Amino acid sequence: MRAEIVAVGTELLLGQIVNTNAQFLSEELAKLGIDVHYQTVVGDNRKRLEHVIRHANGRADVIILSGGLGPTDDDLTREVVSEVTGVPLVMHPPSLSRLKDFFERRGRSMTENNRKQALVFKGGTVFPNENGTAPGLAVEANACHYVLLPGPPRELKPMFRKHVIPYFRRLLPSEEVVHSRVLRFFGIGESQLETDIMDLIHCQDNPTIAPLAKEGEVTLRLTAKAASVAEAEALIERPEKEIRRRVGQYLYGTGDVTLAEVVVKRLTALRKTVALAESCTGGLVANMITSVPGSSEAFLGGYVCYSGKAKRKWLGIPASVLEEHGTVSEQTARWLAEKSRARISSDYGIGVTGVAGPDRVEDKPVGLVYVGLASPGKETVVKPLQLTGLRETIQVRAAKHALHLLYQHLI
Amino acid sequence: MRAEIVAVGTELLLGQIVNTNAQFLSEELAKLGIDVHYQTVVGDNRKRLEHVIRHANGRADVIILSGGLGPTDDDLTREVVSEVTGVPLVMHPPSLSRLKDFFERRGRSMTENNRKQALVFKGGTVFPNENGTAPGLAVEANACHYVLLPGPPRELKPMFRKHVIPYFRRLLPSEEVVHSRVLRFFGIGESQLETDIMDLIHCQDNPTIAPLAKEGEVTLRLTAKAASVAEAEALIERPEKEIRRRVGQYLYGTGDVTLAEVVVKRLTALRKTVALAESCTGGLVANMITSVPGSSEAFLGGYVCYSGKAKRKWLGIPASVLEEHGTVSEQTARWLAEKSRARISSDYGIGVTGVAGPDRVEDKPVGLVYVGLASPGKETVVKPLQLTGLRETIQVRAAKHALHLLYQHLI
Repeated sequence: MRAEIVAVGTELLLGQIVNTNAQFLSEELAKLGIDVHYQTVVGDNRKRLEHVIRHANGRADVIILSGGLGPTDDDLTREVVSEVTGVPLVMHPPSLSRLKDFFERRGRSMTENNRKQALVFKGGTVFPNENGTAPGLAVEANACHYVLLPGPPRELKPMFRKHVIPYFRRLLPSEEVVHSRVLRFFGIGESQLETDIMDLIHCQDNPTIAPLAKEGEVTLRLTAKAASVAEAEALIERPEKEIRRRVGQYLYGTGDVTLAEVVVKRLTALRKTVALAESCTGGLVANMITSVPGSSEAFLGGYVCYSGKAKRKWLGIPASVLEEHGTVSEQTARWLAEKSRARISSDYGIGVTGVAGPDRVEDKPVGLVYVGLASPGKETVVKPLQLTGLRETIQVRAAKHALHLLYQHLI
Repeated sequence: MRAEIVAVGTELLLGQIVNTNAQFLSEELAKLGIDVHYQTVVGDNRKRLEHVIRHANGRADVIILSGGLGPTDDDLTREVVSEVTGVPLVMHPPSLSRLKDFFERRGRSMTENNRKQALVFKGGTVFPNENGTAPGLAVEANACHYVLLPGPPRELKPMFRKHVIPYFRRLLPSEEVVHSRVLRFFGIGESQLETDIMDLIHCQDNPTIAPLAKEGEVTLRLTAKAASVAEAEALIERPEKEIRRRVGQYLYGTGDVTLAEVVVKRLTALRKTVALAESCTGGLVANMITSVPGSSEAFLGGYVCYSGKAKRKWLGIPASVLEEHGTVSEQTARWLAEKSRARISSDYGIGVTGVAGPDRVEDKPVGLVYVGLASPGKETVVKPLQLTGLRETIQVRAAKHALHLLYQHLI
């Protein structure tokens, strides 16, 4: 089954918003085993929208359109699909009464133009909208399934999960499922990882093995087609084992997890705590950790000691250390790690200092970063890094290296 | 001039990444006055890529392709454009020597497949890549301009700004410029702002006035077409004045700035400093401030006092305050603001405490946040907020409210 995703909205063509719906829909369709061959974006323009739909009809079995279902004159998707397919629109009383309720609950009166949101395809399918006004619609015509969804992601996503996935499952041949497993790596480059498992990537087709690099991390997605999830998992198991044997030391998690999550989970399981002292990452490590719900059990607190004054006054790092070795130095990273730990009696302490750019600091090059880890009953370790990229990239990568250093010591 | 943006990459069709390049390119082209009629995404598939390019050729004067310029067999964009246009590829010695340098500087040997990245269109244009390996390319054929850019945003964006914008400026008729001015607001909702200036939005067409809400902020983009930038600016001036008269108290900046930037700039100009104590935002305020290059002059440091222990030990907040009023309280926010200031003798101190969710804290509702500001010679102020959204949204909005509170006191 070949799908095309069509997003409708001039705001997308003006670059005012990012087309996150296309990413979401593509990912969900991939999980269902539906191949997306094209994504298209077109504006709120009748002629061009019609052109896009007719063109998609010639190359797809499923066309998913998002946006253009609202009440204004600019919202054309419903009408244009009706014209192209020849399926007329009819008033849908349950949707109309939902609409009226929606406005009533908000104490607003429903203007006349809102009524058109209750128009649906004759003989088609209606997906209720539990987070907005326009229902989703589906209709089959010209050997093609048209699925129309509202544009706002907070309406589209829950509607897709609750109503559209079951709709597609009924369409799909029931004998086959597509199942994926994602392996997450840190500390190894994409090309090195590819080289190490090149033979597996090339000789496998079920599961397929697809590498992807992002923000200093590399993921491998193993995707198998089989008669059941259990069978697909069995197919994935063998190559996964072999991958783990070769590059397992860089693997930190599977599925939809982050480095911060595995660190928090591990700390919590061990009933250990961590404290931080960050210079060049400016609070980013703390922010990554506290983005994990429940991190308060493991994370006692952090210093963002951006100035020399904070390093001296808050952490008691001797001025002589900063002067002799510099604030960007192995010694300072060591002090940051050890002092943050000592000042709150946590089990672990992390220190980060470096040059995020754009300018050199103390004549040290942009991208030079030291991450330190103080641990109970062990020598403090400091890892020097030479990172590349712009300021933000360097900060993100340095923060991830700091988390990874702790992760490695926890396993 | 009509443009089509074509992103090439199977990872986009699988939903593994979001097509941020399309948003960036659309926004930049809109600024140049080039209309984007379609955005398309196609996978690393020779037949379908060729189909997309031929189809775009029939409806666009400019086709901008991103991705598929790398060294592997999957990277097909260069070859397919050469086939469709009939313009042959030739080796480009300066690009080849850049490539060799790139690998040499990293101490890696250049594999043979990398050489194809130095192939360029005969008689075409080459845009050097200062952040990666594959140069950008342009060629004119079939009454259409083809522009090929590397896929990674950190390569594409700087290349576009530095090399492709001047390339387009030379192509455009010089009689007309499109010029925009963006006004940035905080502390007012989108619907309220729209209501307040509805008449201006409706009766204006040069400049147009387009509102956009994002992450708790609202922007207005005023876009004028005129014979020169000076004339466009003159057209923008009158409605801008009227907008400032009506809702100027919520305006914090114009153009491409952030709340953190205006705060850092203002502090630096006044030679004032700030310190922070963050609980529920977990370092996000510090991270926003330190994302501004040069913030070290104004920002002395911050505490991420996520635990009660850190609040007591690091900031010396009496346990009785935390017990009596709760860690999420006006009183705690006041202590956080005042103590962070006192502990490093900064001019200002900001304190943030609240419930980011997903669970209630101390039986207080998700989204309840207090931001406090301690100032020299003034009573400390604490602002209670009731924010909505998921954990991340609440953290971002709380952090922006904290920055905005300081900003209001600085002007």
